[in-house]
Amino acid sequence: MCIFCDIIAHKIPSKVVYEDDDVLAILDISQVTYGHTIVMPKKHVRNILEADDETIAKCTAVVAKLARQIVKNCHAEGCNILNNCNEVAGQSVDHLHFHIIPRYSKDDCVKFEFLPSKEQDLDEVLKTVKGE
Amino acid sequence: MCIFCDIIAHKIPSKVVYEDDDVLAILDISQVTYGHTIVMPKKHVRNILEADDETIAKCTAVVAKLARQIVKNCHAEGCNILNNCNEVAGQSVDHLHFHIIPRYSKDDCVKFEFLPSKEQDLDEVLKTVKGE
Repeated sequence: MCIFCDIIAHKIPSKVVYEDDDVLAILDISQVTYGHTIVMPKKHVRNILEADDETIAKCTAVVAKLARQIVKNCHAEGCNILNNCNEVAGQSVDHLHFHIIPRYSKDDCVKFEFLPSKEQDLDEVLKTVKGE
Repeated sequence: MCIFCDIIAHKIPSKVVYEDDDVLAILDISQVTYGHTIVMPKKHVRNILEADDETIAKCTAVVAKLARQIVKNCHAEGCNILNNCNEVAGQSVDHLHFHIIPRYSKDDCVKFEFLPSKEQDLDEVLKTVKGE
């Protein structure tokens, strides 16, 4: 049972922004900002870590295309593209999806807050990231 | 003058996580979380709205590959992929880049806060988004 698979199968109604053989884009029901859209592959994959390259490429091409369309048509001044991978990162539905969040100079409902974090030894981090 | 173009040209030092002919990935100097990496095209494009499809595809393929690598090697439990497009969305350098922010159960330095926003008429939003 996956709510996004049911939306893709049109068993659950949604507001379809874009659809092709591989990708579906719908309005996010919560509309963080006006025009907030989510883009998902029709194939069920859990997240960006488990998705194959072709699925990611198809989705991100649609994300970029729709970002341009939405910003233009909604007269937004920019946008955020956000993917949350796993619960720890805020993923609420276990079906890969990307948020397109149009941004406006007067929006005050989105806060990406990066609090001061611990000073890191970048050489040590680099070794870890590279698996050395 | 673009600081990322200078980094790409190795005029400004950086901690290189990955590099190929078209894409460069470096540690973000601010390390919001341990392993925080930014991925950019070598070609100067301002943002996702102005980038061509090929540039976006090359970047997002590297983003996905590195997300897997970084989450694994840093023993993270997930990650956020974030692109800020234009100043209104928090873009601080006008050269397209994607953030990979590994997430950990004990991290408390990242807050993506979506405050309650105005109730929207989804049919009206859909028409606007589609340019109807």
